Amino acid sequence: MKTYQARIYVTLRPSVLDPAGTAVQSGLKHLGYDTVEQVRIGKYIELKLRAPDDATAHTQLDQMCDQLLANPVIENYRFEVTEATEAAVSS
Amino acid sequence: MKTYQARIYVTLRPSVLDPAGTAVQSGLKHLGYDTVEQVRIGKYIELKLRAPDDATAHTQLDQMCDQLLANPVIENYRFEVTEATEAAVSS
Repeated sequence: MKTYQARIYVTLRPSVLDPAGTAVQSGLKHLGYDTVEQVRIGKYIELKLRAPDDATAHTQLDQMCDQLLANPVIENYRFEVTEATEAAVSS
Repeated sequence: MKTYQARIYVTLRPSVLDPAGTAVQSGLKHLGYDTVEQVRIGKYIELKLRAPDDATAHTQLDQMCDQLLANPVIENYRFEVTEATEAAVSS
């Protein structure tokens, strides 16, 4: 079994309104940042898992995203997986 | 003025407990994913802004993160900025 480090990005589908993003944009405007044109807020998940190989890690992550980490009706997800070195594991 | 697309990652500092991440890890375990060792949940913000050049965009993003997007006491942030092409703007 190897240890993998996954970075998962969950974003709202482009057609879905993002009230939190709009609120942040408005907040930035009030602070003087009126050059900000759009803000969309998503989730960033760092996950460490053990798997026998890359392919299994990818498959498991896909299933986790579909079942729990993202809501496929309104959200998209993508992820990157890297094999964790000892240094990365301890950091 | 150019249009820039920024991707901002806000994560909890390693020393800060992440109860939401622990809950997600527990949820994954209940679904059968008992090989997941750690889950940390952060924010992923996509932001579009206008700025005269790269350096100004970077400076503004740093300030926005410090003032509003992240809580520097408990969170770290990093971002990537790319100049938005017409195709990227419309997507």
